[in-house]
Amino acid sequence: MNPKAIHNRITEMTGVDYPIFQAPMGWIARAQLASAVSNSGAMGIIETSSGEFDAIKGEVAKMHDLTDKPFGMNVALAFVKGTNVIDFVIEQGIKFVTTSSGSPNLCTRQFQEAGIKVFHVVPTLDMALKALDAGVDGLVVEGGEGGGFKNPQPVATMVLLPLIRERTEVPIIAAGGICDGATMAAAFAMGAEGVQLGTAMLSCTDSPVHPNWKNAIYQGKETDTVFLNQQGRPALRAMRTERTGELELLGQFQPFEHMANILDLYFGGDLEAAIPLTGQVMGRIHEARSAADIVTSTMTGFYQSLSRLDASYGQ
Amino acid sequence: MNPKAIHNRITEMTGVDYPIFQAPMGWIARAQLASAVSNSGAMGIIETSSGEFDAIKGEVAKMHDLTDKPFGMNVALAFVKGTNVIDFVIEQGIKFVTTSSGSPNLCTRQFQEAGIKVFHVVPTLDMALKALDAGVDGLVVEGGEGGGFKNPQPVATMVLLPLIRERTEVPIIAAGGICDGATMAAAFAMGAEGVQLGTAMLSCTDSPVHPNWKNAIYQGKETDTVFLNQQGRPALRAMRTERTGELELLGQFQPFEHMANILDLYFGGDLEAAIPLTGQVMGRIHEARSAADIVTSTMTGFYQSLSRLDASYGQ
Repeated sequence: MNPKAIHNRITEMTGVDYPIFQAPMGWIARAQLASAVSNSGAMGIIETSSGEFDAIKGEVAKMHDLTDKPFGMNVALAFVKGTNVIDFVIEQGIKFVTTSSGSPNLCTRQFQEAGIKVFHVVPTLDMALKALDAGVDGLVVEGGEGGGFKNPQPVATMVLLPLIRERTEVPIIAAGGICDGATMAAAFAMGAEGVQLGTAMLSCTDSPVHPNWKNAIYQGKETDTVFLNQQGRPALRAMRTERTGELELLGQFQPFEHMANILDLYFGGDLEAAIPLTGQVMGRIHEARSAADIVTSTMTGFYQSLSRLDASYGQ
Repeated sequence: MNPKAIHNRITEMTGVDYPIFQAPMGWIARAQLASAVSNSGAMGIIETSSGEFDAIKGEVAKMHDLTDKPFGMNVALAFVKGTNVIDFVIEQGIKFVTTSSGSPNLCTRQFQEAGIKVFHVVPTLDMALKALDAGVDGLVVEGGEGGGFKNPQPVATMVLLPLIRERTEVPIIAAGGICDGATMAAAFAMGAEGVQLGTAMLSCTDSPVHPNWKNAIYQGKETDTVFLNQQGRPALRAMRTERTGELELLGQFQPFEHMANILDLYFGGDLEAAIPLTGQVMGRIHEARSAADIVTSTMTGFYQSLSRLDASYGQ
């Protein structure tokens, strides 16, 4: 039996049963993974950060074949310059977009006029307040323990999420450190109404990445990530490898030079070919599971955590 | 009216009404602060990490005058060498000790034979498992967002706490990122049965430190800490100042050289005199409040968070 659907502002806005969002990982967040997530009752998201807009158009077409459930797209604003990505996203007829790595002033109004709800990804309170000024419908609040491109001054979810919650009214999707029902319950205790899973989805059986990378995540410890380029911008959280261990010693470097061969890592399985973006939750993920299994067990665990809290400490 | 007392393994072991533990900050965690915390129904703790054992003996005597509630002591094991601190602590007749920065093999059995419950502070799963091998009664699980001396590979509370929870059975006190009821509820959702507050207690009206430092905490943002000495040991999380901004650029340095004049910072109010140890929660603390007010409002907020979760998502 499926876990009970959640009713809150985020499920109302998006039409999903479960407010669990798959992170929009470049090249990875495409139809194979996103359709499995959407079909499980959660929110699959198609990326645009690869910049491969023609391929992405094909992926969106595949989504319409593979699922009749809601799905969304991410717009990495740093890649918007000189492209027609905003029009492109609007043409897909989707109803939910996350925006990141740039000012949401650029497109929030335009998306909203097309009937799309816009959640902007923020790593600090200041950036959350700026996004609210731009009129976004909600926020993805991303703690520094998460993988990928980060603010050079990382703030943990445990601090950032309640800080932004008490200063804002819009719905919040919590990201960073979340991979199961206990962490989802913790995020909801701090005021989130949804959660985003990156590393868990990256390493699931529906993810298209090479087994070498999935296995490295299953085998890694919670201390096996590094925080890179802290004196530069953007910073990154990645798995510790020979390459990233050397980069950790540099205060500043050009990260995109070390991402050029990312496809050799993602799909060729050469972990030294580029920087493997990964969150600290790699230390909590030990086995291959389907996206549907992750969504279902996260929801089951969420309800169990709440029941346990209520039984032990309820008034 | 006081919030309802909590009944769980930690309040049973320690005799407190509220499983909120004041962090054992060197020089600061003495009778003035610790008695205010104990008198509020939570757990005041006397430090030994200053190494000033004669002074500390006087502080413990003061505690017996200032409170008839339970209080505890911390033993920073790095300072135990060549001293009689273990016997000293046993002689104080207290029932609760946290141990940190060393192997709990050194003293756990001896404390337990004296009727003292021992919780060891751990920053990783490996160290938690080692502490369990030493037979500790519980763990203080300390996320990297917290202030003070840290493991050079910091792991956020959101990842570390549930990881250790699912691999162990003993009671856990969560530390790092916690300053109010919402964060306490989050920690309990992830399986903690107690929380430890450092920066919130450091900056409260019952804390003996200079107003300059308290005001800097009230005014600081969540991004205003730095993580120092990441290539060395121990690493530290501290407030960003001119000195710590420069130290941030060094991969490795000798931290104790920069702590020599710590009393000029703590009690003289010169923020550049040493490294001001502070957690990321400084961005959530904006005003002077008493220790009792912090404990009461944390408990009230904890119950409110649980009620809100149950009303919104309860089965």
